[in-house]
Amino acid sequence: MIQGDATTTPVRASVIGASGYTGGELLRLLLDHPLVTIAQASSRRNAGEPLDMIHPHLRRRTQLEFCMPDAIEACDVLFLCMPHGEAATQIERLAPNAKLVIDLSADFRLRDKAAYQAWYGKPHPAPAWLDRFVYGLPETQRERLRGSRFVSGVGCNATAMNLALLPLARAGLIERAICDVKVGSSEAGAEPSAGGHHPERVGRVRPFALTRHRHQAEVRQELGDFALSATITSVELVRGVQCTAHVFPTRPLTDKDLWKLYRDAYSSEPFVRLVKSRTGLHRFPEPKLLSGTNFCDIGFEADESRVVIVSALDNLVKGAAGSAVQCMNIALGFDEAAGLGFYGLHPL
Amino acid sequence: MIQGDATTTPVRASVIGASGYTGGELLRLLLDHPLVTIAQASSRRNAGEPLDMIHPHLRRRTQLEFCMPDAIEACDVLFLCMPHGEAATQIERLAPNAKLVIDLSADFRLRDKAAYQAWYGKPHPAPAWLDRFVYGLPETQRERLRGSRFVSGVGCNATAMNLALLPLARAGLIERAICDVKVGSSEAGAEPSAGGHHPERVGRVRPFALTRHRHQAEVRQELGDFALSATITSVELVRGVQCTAHVFPTRPLTDKDLWKLYRDAYSSEPFVRLVKSRTGLHRFPEPKLLSGTNFCDIGFEADESRVVIVSALDNLVKGAAGSAVQCMNIALGFDEAAGLGFYGLHPL
Amino acid sequence: MIQGDATTTPVRASVIGASGYTGGELLRLLLDHPLVTIAQASSRRNAGEPLDMIHPHLRRRTQLEFCMPDAIEACDVLFLCMPHGEAATQIERLAPNAKLVIDLSADFRLRDKAAYQAWYGKPHPAPAWLDRFVYGLPETQRERLRGSRFVSGVGCNATAMNLALLPLARAGLIERAICDVKVGSSEAGAEPSAGGHHPERVGRVRPFALTRHRHQAEVRQELGDFALSATITSVELVRGVQCTAHVFPTRPLTDKDLWKLYRDAYSSEPFVRLVKSRTGLHRFPEPKLLSGTNFCDIGFEADESRVVIVSALDNLVKGAAGSAVQCMNIALGFDEAAGLGFYGLHPL
Amino acid sequence: MIQGDATTTPVRASVIGASGYTGGELLRLLLDHPLVTIAQASSRRNAGEPLDMIHPHLRRRTQLEFCMPDAIEACDVLFLCMPHGEAATQIERLAPNAKLVIDLSADFRLRDKAAYQAWYGKPHPAPAWLDRFVYGLPETQRERLRGSRFVSGVGCNATAMNLALLPLARAGLIERAICDVKVGSSEAGAEPSAGGHHPERVGRVRPFALTRHRHQAEVRQELGDFALSATITSVELVRGVQCTAHVFPTRPLTDKDLWKLYRDAYSSEPFVRLVKSRTGLHRFPEPKLLSGTNFCDIGFEADESRVVIVSALDNLVKGAAGSAVQCMNIALGFDEAAGLGFYGLHPL
Repeated sequence: MIQGDATTTPVRASVIGASGYTGGELLRLLLDHPLVTIAQASSRRNAGEPLDMIHPHLRRRTQLEFCMPDAIEACDVLFLCMPHGEAATQIERLAPNAKLVIDLSADFRLRDKAAYQAWYGKPHPAPAWLDRFVYGLPETQRERLRGSRFVSGVGCNATAMNLALLPLARAGLIERAICDVKVGSSEAGAEPSAGGHHPERVGRVRPFALTRHRHQAEVRQELGDFALSATITSVELVRGVQCTAHVFPTRPLTDKDLWKLYRDAYSSEPFVRLVKSRTGLHRFPEPKLLSGTNFCDIGFEADESRVVIVSALDNLVKGAAGSAVQCMNIALGFDEAAGLGFYGLHPL
Repeated sequence: MIQGDATTTPVRASVIGASGYTGGELLRLLLDHPLVTIAQASSRRNAGEPLDMIHPHLRRRTQLEFCMPDAIEACDVLFLCMPHGEAATQIERLAPNAKLVIDLSADFRLRDKAAYQAWYGKPHPAPAWLDRFVYGLPETQRERLRGSRFVSGVGCNATAMNLALLPLARAGLIERAICDVKVGSSEAGAEPSAGGHHPERVGRVRPFALTRHRHQAEVRQELGDFALSATITSVELVRGVQCTAHVFPTRPLTDKDLWKLYRDAYSSEPFVRLVKSRTGLHRFPEPKLLSGTNFCDIGFEADESRVVIVSALDNLVKGAAGSAVQCMNIALGFDEAAGLGFYGLHPL
Repeated sequence: MIQGDATTTPVRASVIGASGYTGGELLRLLLDHPLVTIAQASSRRNAGEPLDMIHPHLRRRTQLEFCMPDAIEACDVLFLCMPHGEAATQIERLAPNAKLVIDLSADFRLRDKAAYQAWYGKPHPAPAWLDRFVYGLPETQRERLRGSRFVSGVGCNATAMNLALLPLARAGLIERAICDVKVGSSEAGAEPSAGGHHPERVGRVRPFALTRHRHQAEVRQELGDFALSATITSVELVRGVQCTAHVFPTRPLTDKDLWKLYRDAYSSEPFVRLVKSRTGLHRFPEPKLLSGTNFCDIGFEADESRVVIVSALDNLVKGAAGSAVQCMNIALGFDEAAGLGFYGLHPL
Repeated sequence: MIQGDATTTPVRASVIGASGYTGGELLRLLLDHPLVTIAQASSRRNAGEPLDMIHPHLRRRTQLEFCMPDAIEACDVLFLCMPHGEAATQIERLAPNAKLVIDLSADFRLRDKAAYQAWYGKPHPAPAWLDRFVYGLPETQRERLRGSRFVSGVGCNATAMNLALLPLARAGLIERAICDVKVGSSEAGAEPSAGGHHPERVGRVRPFALTRHRHQAEVRQELGDFALSATITSVELVRGVQCTAHVFPTRPLTDKDLWKLYRDAYSSEPFVRLVKSRTGLHRFPEPKLLSGTNFCDIGFEADESRVVIVSALDNLVKGAAGSAVQCMNIALGFDEAAGLGFYGLHPL
C-alpha cells in the first residue's frame, strides 16, 4: 500500500525555483501526492505563465501559474530548488515561512564547514545552519529525518555511490573504492550551454570530472573513511546515473557474501531493489528502466580480488525530487512511499 | 477525478500473449487500474517465468508468473495480444471464456470482409465475427462501446490519422489528405530483426511504407470517403507516432476555423488535447512528451491552400493498450479514465 | 577518377566565418582537396586559436589558426560562411578580394528582390548583386556555374526538395507537390539555444515549420511554377535531411515511368544516386548513410494517384559546404568531384 | 605524407567473411587504399549479391559481388573476418593461399595456449600456429610485424586498454589498474539479437561484463604483469570504445610526469594523439569524434593517489579493420598510414 490516508487534510507545499528540471519533477510528484496540494510555485523568469508552458508534462494536470519568488507565502512545506549557492544566502529569511524546509541544492548537504570550503572553494555563507539540516538520504538518515524541520538535498551521483557502497562500508569491508559514474544530460540543468548543445552532446562518452568531483564529499560524510575515488563521464541519456563501483575489499568476498550483505541492508527499503540475474536481458541495473521512478537498483559481482557493485537511478527522482518527497513523507509521518508509486516504462 | 469507485469488487482480467510490448504495457496499466485485478497472463515461450523477467518495469510490482495459453481460465475481461492472424482463428474457442473480449491485433478492426481481403491479402478466417466487434476507438465509437462484448484494437498509426482528421472529416471539409506518419521502433514488436538491430536502426529516417499502408483502411472505415494517402517513415524513437496530415480542404480554412472545429470535437474528450502555442518550445504536439500516457495531442496551422494537422501519441498506449483499457472502462461503465492517469515525464 | 591534376599549383582559398558547422565542414573538405590550399580562416570570436580547438576533427590535420575577419587578404577563392544577412552588407567590400566568391548564406540565393522581401521580410540590402550570383546547385545551374565569379549557397532543405522534384518538374508532370522534410539538429547551427538543448532536443519529432518555410522560394525559382507546400519537422539526427515529396502528377505515372525519368535526369550526375531496391534493409534513401558525403540519394514509388519521392542528403555537405566545393570545382574547371570522394560510413 | 608510392603495382587482397561489420569496414579501407586492389570478398550467405546490398556505404564505389568462401583464390594478402573459432580450424588450408594472412578474429591473439584455454574455455584447435602469428598492435609489435607472414587481430577493448596503459606499464609504474570500458553496439556484430534489438538497446547503460572479460588476456600478454581488472559497459553508441583506466601508480605521479611519459611513448606514433586541454568542449578523448578514423586518442589527469587515463577509438577501425590495414602496411613495407587518412566528422 503506497497511498496515504485519504481523509487527512493535505499539507500545503510551495516550491521556490520551480522552472528547472528538478522543480518540474518535484511539481509532477507533488501533483500526484495524495496528501499534498501545491500552494505556490515561483520562477522569476516565468512569473505569470502557467506551469505547463515550461513543464509540458503538466498540461491539463494543473491550472497553476508561476509567481515571483517574493510572493511565496507561509505554507506547510517549502521546497527550495534554486541554483547552488542561493539557498544558503536566503535561508534566514525563508526558514520562518514553513514548518518543514527541504533544500534540493548543494548548500546544506555537508555538515562540516571546512569540508564545504574545501570542495566548493569558498566559505559557507551560513555556517550556523549546517547543523540544523539533516542530510536527505533516507537509507542513512531515516531516524534523524523523522520530525526534522530542515532537510538537505542529495547529490544525484552521491546517492548512486552511497547506495552502492553502504552495505560494504557499514561492515567495514572497503579498503579502496573507485566509482566510475555515467551520467545523463539533465544533470547539467535546463539552461542551454555549449556542452549541452544537441550536436555536441548526443551520443557522447565525454569525461566530465576525471578526478575531484564534489559529490565524493557526501559519500565520505555518510559512509566514513576509506580510500575513495570518483570519475564522472557523460553518456547518452537524458535522465539517469549509473555507478560502477570497483571495490577492493578488506577480505575476500564471494557473490554469496554480497547477497547476504545487500539483502540485510536493503530488504526492508522501499526504494532499493537488488537486481542480479543469471538469465534474461536485464541482469543488472540499468538507468533507462528507472526513468521517472524513485528506485535505486543495485547489482554486484565478485572476482578474485575485486567486487563490482552497480547502482542505477533517475537523477531527477531518487537523485533529487523523489528523495526530497520521500524525506518529506518521513519527516511528516506519512507513508514513506506516498506519491512515489510510479514503476517506470519499458521499452522506452 | 480519474479514479473509479474503490468499493467495487475488481473485475478479473486475463491477457493472452502477454510477453510482447503491447502485452507488457497492458499489464502495467491493469496493475495500476483501481477496478481490475490481473487473473492470468499467458506466454507460450515464457510460461513459468515471473512477469518481470520479460517486463523489467514490473519488478516488485507483481509476483505473477506467465502461464501457458491453454491454461487461461474463465474471467471477466479477456485481452488478446497475440500476433496478427491468431485471434481470428481462435475466437470461437476463446469467446465463451469472458464477458468482454478485447482483441489488440488487426484481426477484427475492419467490419468489411472485402476490405480485409484487399488490405491483408487473404480471406478473413472468421468473417461471421466481424460484425460483432466494435472498433476500439472511443472518439468515434463511444456509444457502441457501452455494454459491448467484443472490442477490436486500433492501428497505432490509424489512430494518429483518425484523430488528426476526425473534426475535418465529420464536417465534410476534406478534399484530399496526405498523412506523413513518423514512427518509433516499438511498432515492429519485441522480436529481434535485421531492420531493428540497433546499429541499423538507431538515428534512422527510413521509409517503411511509402504507399499502401494497411492502417489507411481503418481511417476510411471510421471517417468515410475522401482522397487519402499515407506514408510511414521510421525515425529515432522507441515509443511514439507523429502524424503530419497535409489536408487540402473543400473550402479555405483559417486557424480560427480550425480552433472552433477542433475545440468542438475534442473539448470533452478525456484523452485528446489541443496543443498549439505561439511561444515556448513545445508549440505543437511531440510524441516524446506522451511516452506512457494515453493522450493524443493535436495541433494545426493553415496556409493559403492547405491545412496541416499534427497529431502525436504513444503507439503502445493510446495506439494500443491504453485505448484497450479506455474501451474496457466504457464497455463496463467505469470512469473512462480509470487506470490511465499518467501524465508523462519531461525531460526524457 | 575524382582526383584533379596533381601538377597544378593549388588555388588559395580563404573562409570568412569559419567557426560554425558549415565553416568546419568546408575546412575539412578543402583540407582534403588536391587542388586547394587554405590561406586563411577567420572567426571574430576565436581569432588566435588553432582551428582544431573549435573543430576537433581537424586535430593533427592542420596547424592553422583563426584570424580576425578584417585580416583576410586577397586570395583565389573566398568562401563566406557568415550568419544570414551579413554577406549582403559586406559584399561590396569583399568582392574585390578574390577571383571567385562563394557565399554559403541565404543572402544571394534568390534572384528576384521581391521574392527576397516576401520570404525574408525585409528589402534586400544589395539588390544590384542578386543578378551577379549564380545559384549554387550544379544539377540545375552547371552551365552558368562554369567560369562564374559569384556563386550563392543553397538551402539544405531546398536542395533535398529540388533534387527530389527536378525530373518531374522539368517534364511538367507536377500538379501539386507536398514536401514533408525531416531534418537534424545541425541545421540550426552551432550556437546553443533552448530548442537545441540536449534534454529538449534528443529523440524529438518536433514540427519546426508547418507552413511557409523559406526554402520553398528556392524551389520555385529553380523548378518553376506548380502548387508546392513544404513542412519541416525536426527529428533525431545531427546531420541529415530527408524529403518525402508527395506528388500528384498531371497524368498517371508508374514506377517504370519514374525509373526512366530519374535515370535520364541523373545517370550522369556525379553526386545523385538512385536508391530503390525490392530487398535488403536499405531499400530507399536514408540520411544516416550519407553523413560526410556529397551524395543526394533518391528513391520513389507510385500508387494509383500519387508519386512519393524520397531524397536524402547531409545538410552540411550536399546541403552546404559540399555543394559549395562542387560549384568551385565547376567554376574553376576542376574535376567536379575533386575533394569530394568520401563515401560514408556504415554502420554509424 | 600518408600516400604510398602510386607507381607500385597494387597488391591483391581478398577478404573471407566480408559481410559483417568488420568485413565491411575493411572493404571500405581497402577500396580507398592506394596500393591495394580487392580481388575477392566472400560471404556464404550473400554469395552472388553485390557488396553494396549488405554494405550500403559502398554504393557506386565498387561493382564487386560476394563469392562463396571456397571460391577464394590465391592472392597477396588474405584477410580473415570469420566468427571467432573459425580461422583456427581452417588455417592449415588457408595459409598457403597468400603471402600475408591477417586474421581479425580472436583465434590467434594469445601466444600461450594455456592462456587461450583459460580465457576461452577450450583447448586451442591449432596450437602449433600460435607462435607464427604476430599480435597485430603496431604500437607494441611494430618491429616483429615488418615482413611477418601471419598477423592476428586485436581485441577492440584490449586496444583501448593497451594504449591507455602502455607508457605507464613500460615504465613499471602500475601497481594496480582498473579499466572501466564503455562500448557501442557494433561490438556485438551484425547478427540481430535480443540484446541488440533497438527498443532494448537504445539509450542503455548496460553492464556487459562486470568481471572476467577476455580482452584482459591481451593486455597481460602485451604489457606484462600487474594487477589488472576490467569491466565492460554498453552505452549508447554504434561505433566506439572509451576506456577509463583508473591507475594506482607505484609512486606519485603528476600531470607533468604523465605528459612526459605519454609524449615520449607516442609522439612518433601516426595514430595515437594526446588530447588534454584546459579549455574548450573537447578537453579529453571522445569516441564519437573518431568514427571512421584509425586514431586512438589519449588523455589523462592525476590526483593525489590515482592517475586516470582515458583512451578512445573506433572499435571497427583502430580496434579491428584499421589496425589490420596498418599492420599490412608495416608487414609489406608500405607507408604505415596508407589508406588510413580519414580524420573524422564533427558534429556527428
